[in-house]
Amino acid sequence: MERYADMSVEELKKELEELEKEYRRFQKMDLKLDMSRGKPCTEQLDLSMGMMDVLNSHVDLTCDDGTDCRNYGVLSGIEEAKELIGDMMENHPDNIIIYGNSSLNVMYDTLARAMLSGVMDNTPWCKLEKVKFLCPVPGYDRHFSMTEYFGIEMIPVPMNEEGPDMDMVEKLVSEDELIKGIWCVPKYANPSGATYSEHTVRRFARLHPAAKDFRIFWDNAYGIHHLYDEHQDYIPEILAECKRAGNPDMVYKFASTSKITFPGSGIAALATSQNNLVDIKRQLSQQTIGHDKVNQLRHVRFFGDIHGMVLHMKKHADILRPKFQAVQDALERNLSGLDVGTWTKPNGGYFITFFALDGCAKKIIKRAKKAGVTMTEAGSTWPYHKDPHDRDIRIAPTYPPLEDLKVAAELFSLCVKIVSAEKLLEEKAHAATAAEEK
Amino acid sequence: MERYADMSVEELKKELEELEKEYRRFQKMDLKLDMSRGKPCTEQLDLSMGMMDVLNSHVDLTCDDGTDCRNYGVLSGIEEAKELIGDMMENHPDNIIIYGNSSLNVMYDTLARAMLSGVMDNTPWCKLEKVKFLCPVPGYDRHFSMTEYFGIEMIPVPMNEEGPDMDMVEKLVSEDELIKGIWCVPKYANPSGATYSEHTVRRFARLHPAAKDFRIFWDNAYGIHHLYDEHQDYIPEILAECKRAGNPDMVYKFASTSKITFPGSGIAALATSQNNLVDIKRQLSQQTIGHDKVNQLRHVRFFGDIHGMVLHMKKHADILRPKFQAVQDALERNLSGLDVGTWTKPNGGYFITFFALDGCAKKIIKRAKKAGVTMTEAGSTWPYHKDPHDRDIRIAPTYPPLEDLKVAAELFSLCVKIVSAEKLLEEKAHAATAAEEK
Repeated sequence: MERYADMSVEELKKELEELEKEYRRFQKMDLKLDMSRGKPCTEQLDLSMGMMDVLNSHVDLTCDDGTDCRNYGVLSGIEEAKELIGDMMENHPDNIIIYGNSSLNVMYDTLARAMLSGVMDNTPWCKLEKVKFLCPVPGYDRHFSMTEYFGIEMIPVPMNEEGPDMDMVEKLVSEDELIKGIWCVPKYANPSGATYSEHTVRRFARLHPAAKDFRIFWDNAYGIHHLYDEHQDYIPEILAECKRAGNPDMVYKFASTSKITFPGSGIAALATSQNNLVDIKRQLSQQTIGHDKVNQLRHVRFFGDIHGMVLHMKKHADILRPKFQAVQDALERNLSGLDVGTWTKPNGGYFITFFALDGCAKKIIKRAKKAGVTMTEAGSTWPYHKDPHDRDIRIAPTYPPLEDLKVAAELFSLCVKIVSAEKLLEEKAHAATAAEEK
Repeated sequence: MERYADMSVEELKKELEELEKEYRRFQKMDLKLDMSRGKPCTEQLDLSMGMMDVLNSHVDLTCDDGTDCRNYGVLSGIEEAKELIGDMMENHPDNIIIYGNSSLNVMYDTLARAMLSGVMDNTPWCKLEKVKFLCPVPGYDRHFSMTEYFGIEMIPVPMNEEGPDMDMVEKLVSEDELIKGIWCVPKYANPSGATYSEHTVRRFARLHPAAKDFRIFWDNAYGIHHLYDEHQDYIPEILAECKRAGNPDMVYKFASTSKITFPGSGIAALATSQNNLVDIKRQLSQQTIGHDKVNQLRHVRFFGDIHGMVLHMKKHADILRPKFQAVQDALERNLSGLDVGTWTKPNGGYFITFFALDGCAKKIIKRAKKAGVTMTEAGSTWPYHKDPHDRDIRIAPTYPPLEDLKVAAELFSLCVKIVSAEKLLEEKAHAATAAEEK
């Protein structure tokens, strides 16, 4: 196909006419499709229904160490769950706290604790004139809105193919004591699907932060969420890397089973150094007597061990692979060669990011919405919802049924073409006027 | 029995000799009993095993409104759960947020939010030079330690038979703008088992706090935890009372099913005014996507409705009544007439409070411990663990098996007698010396 930029004004006008006709056909379909949130689909949820059977009134709800899971106690989680989640997170069980149903809540609590009580005897962040966080972009909207809620200033750091721009991260972190943290989704990142290179992870572990209480917020949300069994991304384990580099306390690592079993009814966890754990437990013991141990036991009994969990994730992959493929196919078929955008091709996770021509993201999403397809709001993958190029679009292919998704991906491609053609037409008209005026 | 105070020195010495003999008999029994925490016993937990059966892989996990409980979403809880918990808390479902497994966690979050973000657009408490809370004493140790953790100054307010000393509460609250809250366990209070009178509740609703962001932290932990079907304590519903009194936003009310189904795997809730709810949800939406809806549904399906829950609570009462009775019997049999202490006789809840002679609580608890019976640490029912009279002892009769409890109550009574006799002997010796010196 010909690059839109190379078309003449006439050709572009003609193309646009055709595209608008097609768009109207879509509008008549009265679609109501949602590619906005990273929600598992019904078939994925069905995979975990067995979890509802492993505990029943004839089953002993006692741990190996004799703990009755039904009663109060066990602040940091039952041992069996720590072992399972330790294997999942690639951390020693002793470095883990099992929380409630939401890793987002764990991150929130971690920020709230740092704000109110400080990190390991350092000044509480709420007592400082200002606190700043580095935010690799595009990134996870909920990280950013939570950070904004706490009044923390966000500094965007561009992502490249290896992860965040580490030259920039190293420079900023070593120079500015007010920078207290960085948000990382290191594997199959939300929203690009990119995975940090080994080199990037090592550079993270070797940071020299000006702030003693600087922490990497390592949200390994998609650690075992591969799409392919053969093509799996790999990252070095960050706690171990940091320990080797002499920075043992620099990381809070988060994960959950939200996209493994049931979102909202999974178990979340934090892995970190012993020093950080002591610091955290001092607060946690004020906050709760313990999290839901019955649900921890339910997860352990359902999976048995990490191998059971891996086999389970393959079933997720079997459902998700065709969906990701359908979006990739539609984008490839409709947009290849037009030079109106690029997109990521992740090996796992929940998202594809589409990079439109500058200034086109909002319009594309608006167009899609008008024809019944909801995308994540433009700008939401940037701090303060401000994408300076108005370019990044997060595509979430997991939730809609495959057939709906195919239609949605077609419509999305069409909207990209329309908005891009309009933009180029406008530019050409503008250039022509400018030439005339000369 | 004769009052110890009326005994001669010789009589007291002889009594003490006999008591010590008996104490040594207990020591030889090598007891390991725990009357320290308000934990349900195994038989109580067994009552809720049916909760493990109501959901299974053949059951539809969808709400009446079509919400798939397995997936993300529904910030404030599923409607069915709000109705059930609304009936339990005597509040409209629309005034309720269902949280995770722990009302303690809800209280913590409520304090943390007030500290960091303030209450309804007032200055965040962490920005104030000082924040104070009123703490009716004796009270719940976890309330106090949490308050201390947040650096909030605690002012003890004595409890009398009608609840906290309301003259003092009214005066302090109306005069001091730094007083931002008061902890209340209005029904079958932890640890006295006392219930606020209707008059007290009405006076609470009619407070005129100097601080606009003053809130009553109304921990109705034992709202339906009656010991008797016929003798049930009653308190007016505080939200409604406050609304009628023109103070609609003055209360945060907390409850959970921790001592109804499984502690640690129940559901917790907060009830409050619409204005407060808007304020809270602004923060809650940053903290989580939603709490465990499957567990909410599990509770709804298990109980059916509030009548099911009430019938369930009667079974709890049947287990707990003999335990409370055993403690009452032992105290009555062993201590009546000796004038060495008084104790409460609650109609519900989880605790009895024993008021020893001044300066005796620590010693009694130490004595009991030395013979293998663990009581709640002395002083823990007071802010900063400082019981100025060293007098209050919390007895938690629920957890030990009945036979163990009987032994523990005997031993406890014995320890009371020993420590009281020692105290009186010392006083008499001191008085004699003083008389001689004269």
